[in-house]
Amino acid sequence: MERISDATISRLSQYYRTLDRLIEQKIQTVSSDEIAEIDGVTSAQVRKDLSFFGSFGRRGLGYNTRDLKTNIGYILGLDKIWNVALIGIGNIGRALVDYSEFKKQGFIIKLLFDNDPEKVGNIINNLSIISFSEVHEHLKVEDIHIAIVAVPAKVAQSVVNKLVEAGIKAILNFAPISLKVPRGVMIKNENMSIELEALSYHLKNKYKK
Amino acid sequence: MERISDATISRLSQYYRTLDRLIEQKIQTVSSDEIAEIDGVTSAQVRKDLSFFGSFGRRGLGYNTRDLKTNIGYILGLDKIWNVALIGIGNIGRALVDYSEFKKQGFIIKLLFDNDPEKVGNIINNLSIISFSEVHEHLKVEDIHIAIVAVPAKVAQSVVNKLVEAGIKAILNFAPISLKVPRGVMIKNENMSIELEALSYHLKNKYKK
Repeated sequence: MERISDATISRLSQYYRTLDRLIEQKIQTVSSDEIAEIDGVTSAQVRKDLSFFGSFGRRGLGYNTRDLKTNIGYILGLDKIWNVALIGIGNIGRALVDYSEFKKQGFIIKLLFDNDPEKVGNIINNLSIISFSEVHEHLKVEDIHIAIVAVPAKVAQSVVNKLVEAGIKAILNFAPISLKVPRGVMIKNENMSIELEALSYHLKNKYKK
Repeated sequence: MERISDATISRLSQYYRTLDRLIEQKIQTVSSDEIAEIDGVTSAQVRKDLSFFGSFGRRGLGYNTRDLKTNIGYILGLDKIWNVALIGIGNIGRALVDYSEFKKQGFIIKLLFDNDPEKVGNIINNLSIISFSEVHEHLKVEDIHIAIVAVPAKVAQSVVNKLVEAGIKAILNFAPISLKVPRGVMIKNENMSIELEALSYHLKNKYKK
Protein backbone atom coordinates (compact mmCIF):
# COMPACT_ATOMS: atom_id res chain seq x y z
CA MET A 1 0.00 0.00 0.00
CA GLU A 2 1.34 3.42 -0.86
CA ARG A 3 2.20 5.80 1.96
CA ILE A 4 -0.81 7.81 3.05
CA SER A 5 -0.26 11.43 4.07
CA ASP A 6 -0.87 12.64 7.62
CA ALA A 7 -3.59 14.93 6.29
CA THR A 8 -5.45 11.95 4.79
CA ILE A 9 -5.14 9.99 8.05
CA SER A 10 -6.54 12.96 9.93
CA ARG A 11 -9.50 13.23 7.54
CA LEU A 12 -10.13 9.48 7.87
CA SER A 13 -10.39 10.01 11.64
CA GLN A 14 -12.93 12.72 10.97
CA TYR A 15 -14.98 10.53 8.60
CA TYR A 16 -14.84 7.74 11.19
CA ARG A 17 -16.49 10.05 13.76
CA THR A 18 -19.05 11.24 11.25
CA LEU A 19 -19.98 7.64 10.41
CA ASP A 20 -20.23 6.86 14.11
CA ARG A 21 -22.79 9.64 14.55
CA LEU A 22 -24.72 8.62 11.42
CA ILE A 23 -24.94 5.05 12.72
CA GLU A 24 -26.21 6.38 16.08
CA GLN A 25 -28.91 8.18 14.08
CA LYS A 26 -29.73 4.84 12.40
CA ILE A 27 -28.66 6.09 8.95
CA GLN A 28 -27.67 3.09 6.81
CA THR A 29 -26.17 4.63 3.67
CA VAL A 30 -24.28 7.82 2.96
CA SER A 31 -22.89 9.40 -0.21
CA SER A 32 -19.47 11.02 -0.54
CA ASP A 33 -21.35 14.31 -1.09
CA GLU A 34 -23.06 13.95 2.28
CA ILE A 35 -19.81 13.10 4.11
CA ALA A 36 -18.18 16.06 2.38
CA GLU A 37 -20.97 18.41 3.43
CA ILE A 38 -20.81 17.31 7.09
CA ASP A 39 -17.02 17.40 7.31
CA GLY A 40 -16.49 20.58 5.32
CA VAL A 41 -14.32 19.11 2.57
CA THR A 42 -15.02 18.64 -1.15
CA SER A 43 -16.69 15.42 -2.26
CA ALA A 44 -13.81 14.88 -4.71
CA GLN A 45 -11.50 14.89 -1.66
CA VAL A 46 -13.67 12.33 0.16
CA ARG A 47 -13.70 10.04 -2.89
CA LYS A 48 -9.94 10.44 -3.32
CA ASP A 49 -9.27 9.68 0.36
CA LEU A 50 -11.41 6.55 0.26
CA SER A 51 -9.98 5.41 -3.07
CA PHE A 52 -6.62 4.73 -1.40
CA PHE A 53 -8.19 1.64 0.04
CA GLY A 54 -10.05 0.34 -2.97
CA SER A 55 -13.70 0.85 -3.77
CA PHE A 56 -15.96 0.52 -0.74
CA GLY A 57 -19.08 2.12 -2.15
CA ARG A 58 -21.35 1.22 -5.00
CA ARG A 59 -21.84 3.95 -7.56
CA GLY A 60 -25.17 5.67 -7.12
CA LEU A 61 -25.97 3.79 -3.91
CA GLY A 62 -23.43 5.43 -1.64
CA TYR A 63 -21.61 3.71 1.16
CA ASN A 64 -23.04 1.43 3.80
CA THR A 65 -22.26 3.39 6.99
CA ARG A 66 -21.36 0.35 9.11
CA ASP A 67 -19.14 -1.23 6.48
CA LEU A 68 -17.35 2.03 5.77
CA LYS A 69 -16.80 2.70 9.49
CA THR A 70 -15.42 -0.82 9.96
CA ASN A 71 -13.10 -0.43 6.97
CA ILE A 72 -11.77 2.97 8.06
CA GLY A 73 -11.39 1.71 11.64
CA TYR A 74 -9.40 -1.23 10.31
CA ILE A 75 -7.10 1.09 8.35
CA LEU A 76 -6.54 3.34 11.37
CA GLY A 77 -5.84 0.38 13.62
CA LEU A 78 -8.98 0.98 15.70
CA ASP A 79 -9.93 -2.70 15.44
CA LYS A 80 -7.20 -3.39 18.00
CA ILE A 81 -6.59 -2.52 21.64
CA TRP A 82 -3.58 -0.26 22.19
CA ASN A 83 -1.95 -0.15 25.62
CA VAL A 84 -0.96 3.36 26.61
CA ALA A 85 1.32 4.77 29.31
CA LEU A 86 0.72 8.32 30.49
CA ILE A 87 3.70 10.29 31.78
CA GLY A 88 3.07 13.42 33.84
CA ILE A 89 0.00 13.56 36.08
CA GLY A 90 -0.54 17.32 36.22
CA ASN A 91 -3.73 19.04 35.07
CA ILE A 92 -3.54 17.79 31.48
CA GLY A 93 -2.57 14.29 32.62
CA ARG A 94 -5.52 14.12 35.01
CA ALA A 95 -7.87 15.26 32.27
CA LEU A 96 -6.53 12.54 29.95
CA VAL A 97 -6.94 9.73 32.50
CA ASP A 98 -10.68 10.44 32.47
CA TYR A 99 -10.98 11.12 28.75
CA SER A 100 -13.65 8.72 27.55
CA GLU A 101 -12.83 9.11 23.84
CA PHE A 102 -9.51 7.30 24.28
CA LYS A 103 -11.10 4.16 25.67
CA LYS A 104 -13.89 4.31 23.10
CA GLN A 105 -11.34 4.07 20.26
CA GLY A 106 -9.39 1.26 21.93
CA PHE A 107 -6.63 3.31 23.57
CA ILE A 108 -6.40 1.97 27.13
CA ILE A 109 -4.30 3.88 29.65
CA LYS A 110 -2.65 1.12 31.67
CA LEU A 111 0.21 2.90 33.42
CA LEU A 112 0.60 6.32 35.04
CA PHE A 113 4.02 7.82 35.75
CA ASP A 114 5.19 10.93 37.53
CA ASN A 115 8.43 12.13 39.09
CA ASP A 116 6.86 13.90 42.04
CA PRO A 117 7.24 11.82 45.25
CA GLU A 118 4.02 13.45 46.51
CA LYS A 119 2.11 11.90 43.61
CA VAL A 120 3.81 8.48 43.41
CA GLY A 121 1.53 5.85 44.99
CA ASN A 122 -1.65 7.93 44.62
CA ILE A 123 -4.45 6.11 42.84
CA ILE A 124 -6.48 7.54 39.96
CA ASN A 125 -9.07 5.42 38.12
CA ASN A 126 -7.75 2.29 39.84
CA LEU A 127 -4.20 2.95 38.65
CA SER A 128 -1.39 3.68 41.07
CA ILE A 129 1.03 6.42 39.97
CA ILE A 130 4.51 4.93 39.48
CA SER A 131 7.84 6.72 39.78
CA PHE A 132 9.17 7.54 36.30
CA SER A 133 12.58 6.17 37.34
CA GLU A 134 11.00 2.69 37.09
CA VAL A 135 9.56 3.25 33.61
CA HIS A 136 11.78 0.78 31.78
CA GLU A 137 10.70 -2.40 33.56
CA HIS A 138 7.00 -1.50 33.71
CA LEU A 139 6.65 -0.74 30.00
CA LYS A 140 7.89 -4.20 29.10
CA VAL A 141 5.69 -6.02 31.61
CA GLU A 142 2.50 -4.26 30.49
CA ASP A 143 3.25 -4.48 26.75
CA ILE A 144 2.81 -0.73 26.21
CA HIS A 145 2.52 0.46 22.59
CA ILE A 146 2.03 4.20 22.92
CA ALA A 147 3.27 6.79 25.44
CA ILE A 148 1.50 10.09 26.10
CA VAL A 149 3.85 12.78 27.42
CA ALA A 150 2.17 15.50 29.49
CA VAL A 151 5.19 16.83 31.39
CA PRO A 152 6.57 20.40 31.54
CA ALA A 153 8.41 21.51 28.39
CA LYS A 154 11.82 21.69 30.09
CA VAL A 155 11.89 17.97 30.96
CA ALA A 156 9.98 16.67 27.92
CA GLN A 157 13.04 15.79 25.79
CA SER A 158 14.70 13.79 28.57
CA VAL A 159 11.43 11.93 29.24
CA VAL A 160 11.10 11.12 25.53
CA ASN A 161 14.71 9.91 25.40
CA LYS A 162 14.02 7.46 28.26
CA LEU A 163 10.85 6.22 26.56
CA VAL A 164 12.71 5.62 23.30
CA GLU A 165 15.46 3.74 25.18
CA ALA A 166 12.72 1.59 26.70
CA GLY A 167 11.54 0.66 23.19
CA ILE A 168 8.50 2.93 22.68
CA LYS A 169 7.77 3.54 18.96
CA ALA A 170 4.83 5.97 19.17
CA ILE A 171 4.54 9.10 21.32
CA LEU A 172 1.85 11.74 21.69
CA ASN A 173 3.37 14.92 23.11
CA PHE A 174 1.34 17.58 24.94
CA ALA A 175 4.38 19.62 26.03
CA PRO A 176 4.59 22.87 24.05
CA ILE A 177 8.00 22.12 22.58
CA SER A 178 9.35 20.38 19.50
CA LEU A 179 11.03 17.10 20.42
CA LYS A 180 13.56 14.93 18.59
CA VAL A 181 13.15 11.20 18.15
CA PRO A 182 15.25 8.73 16.17
CA ARG A 183 14.07 7.34 12.83
CA GLY A 184 11.43 4.63 13.27
CA VAL A 185 9.81 6.37 16.24
CA MET A 186 6.75 8.49 15.49
CA ILE A 187 5.91 11.50 17.58
CA LYS A 188 2.78 13.63 17.20
CA ASN A 189 2.29 16.94 18.92
CA GLU A 190 -1.04 17.87 20.41
CA ASN A 191 -1.27 21.63 20.38
CA MET A 192 -4.57 22.81 21.72
CA SER A 193 -4.16 26.35 20.41
CA ILE A 194 -4.26 25.35 16.72
CA GLU A 195 -8.05 25.12 16.65
CA LEU A 196 -8.26 28.50 18.39
CA GLU A 197 -6.25 29.97 15.53
CA ALA A 198 -8.86 28.79 13.04
CA LEU A 199 -11.39 30.69 15.16
CA SER A 200 -9.36 33.88 15.30
CA TYR A 201 -8.88 33.67 11.53
CA HIS A 202 -12.66 33.36 11.15
CA LEU A 203 -13.38 36.27 13.50
CA LYS A 204 -10.78 38.50 11.95
CA ASN A 205 -11.91 37.91 8.38
CA LYS A 206 -15.64 37.77 8.99
CA TYR A 207 -16.05 40.52 11.52
CA LYS A 208 -13.09 42.71 10.55
CA LYS A 209 -12.01 43.27 14.12
CA MET B 1 -9.42 37.45 -0.63
CA GLU B 2 -10.71 34.02 -1.64
CA ARG B 3 -11.91 31.65 1.07
CA ILE B 4 -9.06 29.64 2.51
CA SER B 5 -9.74 26.01 3.47
CA ASP B 6 -9.57 24.80 7.06
CA ALA B 7 -6.72 22.48 6.08
CA THR B 8 -4.69 25.44 4.81
CA ILE B 9 -5.37 27.42 7.99
CA SER B 10 -4.23 24.45 10.04
CA ARG B 11 -1.00 24.16 8.02
CA LEU B 12 -0.39 27.90 8.41
CA SER B 13 -0.60 27.39 12.20
CA GLN B 14 1.98 24.66 11.83
CA TYR B 15 4.32 26.85 9.71
CA TYR B 16 3.89 29.64 12.27
CA ARG B 17 5.21 27.34 15.03
CA THR B 18 8.05 26.13 12.83
CA LEU B 19 9.09 29.73 12.10
CA ASP B 20 8.90 30.53 15.80
CA ARG B 21 11.35 27.75 16.55
CA LEU B 22 13.67 28.73 13.67
CA ILE B 23 13.74 32.31 15.00
CA GLU B 24 14.60 31.00 18.49
CA GLN B 25 17.50 29.16 16.84
CA LYS B 26 18.54 32.50 15.25
CA ILE B 27 17.88 31.26 11.71
CA GLN B 28 17.15 34.23 9.46
CA THR B 29 16.03 32.71 6.16
CA VAL B 30 14.25 29.51 5.22
CA SER B 31 13.22 27.93 1.92
CA SER B 32 9.86 26.34 1.18
CA ASP B 33 11.77 23.03 0.86
CA GLU B 34 13.08 23.40 4.40
CA ILE B 35 9.64 24.26 5.84
CA ALA B 36 8.21 21.29 3.92
CA GLU B 37 10.86 18.94 5.31
CA ILE B 38 10.27 20.05 8.93
CA ASP B 39 6.48 19.96 8.69
CA GLY B 40 6.17 16.78 6.66
CA VAL B 41 4.36 18.26 3.64
CA THR B 42 5.51 18.72 0.04
CA SER B 43 7.30 21.94 -0.86
CA ALA B 44 4.73 22.48 -3.63
CA GLN B 45 2.08 22.49 -0.90
CA VAL B 46 4.03 25.04 1.17
CA ARG B 47 4.43 27.33 -1.84
CA LYS B 48 0.75 26.94 -2.72
CA ASP B 49 -0.35 27.71 0.84
CA LEU B 50 1.80 30.82 1.00
CA SER B 51 0.78 31.95 -2.49
CA PHE B 52 -2.74 32.66 -1.21
CA PHE B 53 -1.33 35.73 0.41
CA GLY B 54 0.85 37.02 -2.39
CA SER B 55 4.55 36.47 -2.72
CA PHE B 56 6.44 36.82 0.54
CA GLY B 57 9.70 35.22 -0.48
CA ARG B 58 12.28 36.08 -3.06
CA ARG B 59 13.10 33.34 -5.53
CA GLY B 60 16.36 31.61 -4.66
CA LEU B 61 16.75 33.51 -1.39
CA GLY B 62 13.95 31.89 0.56
CA TYR B 63 11.80 33.62 3.12
CA ASN B 64 12.92 35.91 5.91
CA THR B 65 11.78 33.96 8.98
CA ARG B 66 10.63 37.00 10.98
CA ASP B 67 8.75 38.59 8.10
CA LEU B 68 7.04 35.33 7.18
CA LYS B 69 6.06 34.68 10.82
CA THR B 70 4.65 38.20 11.10
CA ASN B 71 2.69 37.81 7.87
CA ILE B 72 1.24 34.41 8.78
CA GLY B 73 0.43 35.68 12.29
CA TYR B 74 -1.38 38.62 10.73
CA ILE B 75 -3.44 36.30 8.51
CA LEU B 76 -4.36 34.06 11.45
CA GLY B 77 -5.31 37.04 13.59
CA LEU B 78 -2.45 36.43 16.03
CA ASP B 79 -1.46 40.11 15.87
CA LYS B 80 -4.48 40.81 18.10
CA ILE B 81 -5.53 39.97 21.63
CA TRP B 82 -8.60 37.72 21.83
CA ASN B 83 -10.61 37.61 25.03
CA VAL B 84 -11.73 34.10 25.91
CA ALA B 85 -14.33 32.72 28.32
CA LEU B 86 -13.88 29.16 29.57
CA ILE B 87 -17.00 27.22 30.50
CA GLY B 88 -16.62 24.09 32.63
CA ILE B 89 -13.85 23.95 35.24
CA GLY B 90 -13.34 20.19 35.45
CA ASN B 91 -10.04 18.45 34.70
CA ILE B 92 -9.78 19.69 31.12
CA GLY B 93 -10.88 23.19 32.12
CA ARG B 94 -8.24 23.37 34.83
CA ALA B 95 -5.58 22.22 32.41
CA LEU B 96 -6.62 24.93 29.94
CA VAL B 97 -6.51 27.75 32.50
CA ASP B 98 -2.80 27.05 32.93
CA TYR B 99 -2.05 26.34 29.27
CA SER B 100 0.74 28.75 28.39
CA GLU B 101 0.38 28.35 24.61
CA PHE B 102 -2.97 30.17 24.64
CA LYS B 103 -1.54 33.31 26.21
CA LYS B 104 1.53 33.13 23.99
CA GLN B 105 -0.66 33.36 20.85
CA GLY B 106 -2.80 36.18 22.24
CA PHE B 107 -5.74 34.13 23.58
CA ILE B 108 -6.39 35.49 27.07
CA ILE B 109 -8.78 33.59 29.33
CA LYS B 110 -10.66 36.37 31.13
CA LEU B 111 -13.72 34.59 32.53
CA LEU B 112 -14.30 31.19 34.10
CA PHE B 113 -17.79 29.70 34.40
CA ASP B 114 -19.18 26.59 36.03
CA ASN B 115 -22.56 25.41 37.19
CA ASP B 116 -21.38 23.64 40.32
CA PRO B 117 -22.14 25.75 43.46
CA GLU B 118 -19.10 24.13 45.10
CA LYS B 119 -16.84 25.66 42.44
CA VAL B 120 -18.48 29.08 42.03
CA GLY B 121 -16.43 31.70 43.87
CA ASN B 122 -13.22 29.63 43.89
CA ILE B 123 -10.23 31.44 42.47
CA ILE B 124 -7.87 29.97 39.84
CA ASN B 125 -5.06 32.06 38.32
CA ASN B 126 -6.57 35.24 39.85
CA LEU B 127 -9.96 34.56 38.23
CA SER B 128 -13.03 33.85 40.31
CA ILE B 129 -15.31 31.11 38.94
CA ILE B 130 -18.70 32.61 38.03
CA SER B 131 -22.06 30.84 37.94
CA PHE B 132 -22.96 29.99 34.33
CA SER B 133 -26.45 31.39 34.93
CA GLU B 134 -24.83 34.86 34.85
CA VAL B 135 -23.00 34.26 31.57
CA HIS B 136 -24.98 36.77 29.49
CA GLU B 137 -24.11 39.95 31.39
CA HIS B 138 -20.45 39.02 31.99
CA LEU B 139 -19.66 38.24 28.35
CA LYS B 140 -20.77 41.72 27.30
CA VAL B 141 -18.87 43.53 30.05
CA GLU B 142 -15.59 41.76 29.33
CA ASP B 143 -15.87 41.95 25.52
CA ILE B 144 -15.39 38.22 25.05
CA HIS B 145 -14.68 37.01 21.49
CA ILE B 146 -14.26 33.26 21.89
CA ALA B 147 -15.79 30.68 24.24
CA ILE B 148 -14.13 27.39 25.13
CA VAL B 149 -16.61 24.71 26.16
CA ALA B 150 -15.22 21.99 28.44
CA VAL B 151 -18.44 20.67 29.97
CA PRO B 152 -19.85 17.11 29.95
CA ALA B 153 -21.30 15.99 26.61
CA LYS B 154 -24.87 15.83 27.88
CA VAL B 155 -25.05 19.55 28.72
CA ALA B 156 -22.79 20.84 25.93
CA GLN B 157 -25.57 21.72 23.45
CA SER B 158 -27.55 23.75 25.99
CA VAL B 159 -24.37 25.59 27.05
CA VAL B 160 -23.59 26.38 23.41
CA ASN B 161 -27.16 27.60 22.84
CA LYS B 162 -26.82 30.07 25.74
CA LEU B 163 -23.46 31.29 24.44
CA VAL B 164 -24.90 31.87 20.98
CA GLU B 165 -27.86 33.78 22.50
CA ALA B 166 -25.32 35.92 24.34
CA GLY B 167 -23.72 36.82 21.00
CA ILE B 168 -20.66 34.55 20.86
CA LYS B 169 -19.47 33.93 17.27
CA ALA B 170 -16.59 31.48 17.83
CA ILE B 171 -16.57 28.36 20.01
CA LEU B 172 -13.95 25.73 20.72
CA ASN B 173 -15.63 22.56 21.95
CA PHE B 174 -13.86 19.88 24.01
CA ALA B 175 -17.00 17.86 24.74
CA PRO B 176 -16.97 14.61 22.76
CA ILE B 177 -20.17 15.36 20.88
CA SER B 178 -21.13 17.10 17.66
CA LEU B 179 -22.92 20.40 18.37
CA LYS B 180 -25.20 22.55 16.24
CA VAL B 181 -24.74 26.29 15.84
CA PRO B 182 -26.58 28.75 13.60
CA ARG B 183 -25.01 30.13 10.43
CA GLY B 184 -22.45 32.84 11.18
CA VAL B 185 -21.18 31.10 14.32
CA MET B 186 -18.06 28.99 13.96
CA ILE B 187 -17.49 25.95 16.14
CA LYS B 188 -14.34 23.82 16.15
CA ASN B 189 -14.06 20.50 17.93
CA GLU B 190 -10.94 19.59 19.81
CA ASN B 191 -10.69 15.83 19.82
CA MET B 192 -7.58 14.63 21.54
CA SER B 193 -7.82 11.09 20.21
CA ILE B 194 -7.30 12.08 16.56
CA GLU B 195 -3.52 12.31 16.95
CA LEU B 196 -3.52 8.94 18.71
CA GLU B 197 -5.17 7.45 15.64
CA ALA B 198 -2.28 8.64 13.47
CA LEU B 199 -0.01 6.76 15.88
CA SER B 200 -2.06 3.56 15.80
CA TYR B 201 -2.07 3.76 11.99
CA HIS B 202 1.72 4.09 12.08
CA LEU B 203 2.17 1.19 14.50
CA LYS B 204 -0.22 -1.06 12.64
CA ASN B 205 1.34 -0.47 9.23
CA LYS B 206 4.95 -0.32 10.29
CA TYR B 207 5.08 -3.07 12.85
CA LYS B 208 2.26 -5.26 11.53
CA LYS B 209 0.76 -5.82 14.94
